[in-house]
Amino acid sequence: MAVLRILGIDPGSRYMGYGVIERNGSRLRYIHADRLVLGNMPFTERLLKIDAFLGELLALYEPDCAAFEGIFHQKFADAAIKLGHARGVAICACARFGIPLYEYAPTDVKQSVTSFGRAEKAQVADMVRILLGVQNTWPVDASDALAIAICHANRI
Amino acid sequence: MAVLRILGIDPGSRYMGYGVIERNGSRLRYIHADRLVLGNMPFTERLLKIDAFLGELLALYEPDCAAFEGIFHQKFADAAIKLGHARGVAICACARFGIPLYEYAPTDVKQSVTSFGRAEKAQVADMVRILLGVQNTWPVDASDALAIAICHANRI
Repeated sequence: MAVLRILGIDPGSRYMGYGVIERNGSRLRYIHADRLVLGNMPFTERLLKIDAFLGELLALYEPDCAAFEGIFHQKFADAAIKLGHARGVAICACARFGIPLYEYAPTDVKQSVTSFGRAEKAQVADMVRILLGVQNTWPVDASDALAIAICHANRI
Repeated sequence: MAVLRILGIDPGSRYMGYGVIERNGSRLRYIHADRLVLGNMPFTERLLKIDAFLGELLALYEPDCAAFEGIFHQKFADAAIKLGHARGVAICACARFGIPLYEYAPTDVKQSVTSFGRAEKAQVADMVRILLGVQNTWPVDASDALAIAICHANRI
């Protein structure tokens, strides 16, 4: 079975987490993960930065597919709109690169790495380390992005 | 005073209205308006289409700036998220073109063309025709986009 390189993305309007893994049969390999800091830049500049950054990331790591967490049950419409803008730009950047995109519910992502749909962020990061066989520590957005990539690796 | 070419955009996840006008002193001139039909395509393809279409539109009409309607008080978070995705991609496409972007509240846009913040869509279209001195009929998204452009022309 061919090696599949998966990019997981956890988009946000202040931070965008991203993680790249490879699946080779039943084995997972960690490649890279971090977060893009968008902070307090004017909102339009944050969208531009997401777009430009993902263009470079995709060219550098050449993933075969990208996985996003679905947005479900957002409580606040205003926060949902901002997140929607950032996520739309991220999805469009990956789609422009021509790779297939996948979406998983947050509970599926957590279930996939911890066997428990309501796990804490720290538990998710611990399980990501175990599943990838590494000792790294990452910003929480980055370990979440890796969990999304692992979720996709387990589903295909 | 130099002629200013303004692109108004009314983004949506099913239709995106757009309208181009020129302001020359106190005179407004109609250039073009229509809507992009996104319909029932897979959502990612709609985002790609918005991105590609705006790239072509900007290259063709070379506006000096773009104006968007702000999103305020969306009732339903799910609809707000979808709209946010489409709007984020549209904003990013214009920002990538390097022109300044402006945002106006829906009530300001209506007030700007009808002197009444709660005007009906048909009244908005009637006033847009009068203010631009044309007899055209447009899809409602297109006349709304022209109203956004006119709002910006009146504010600067």
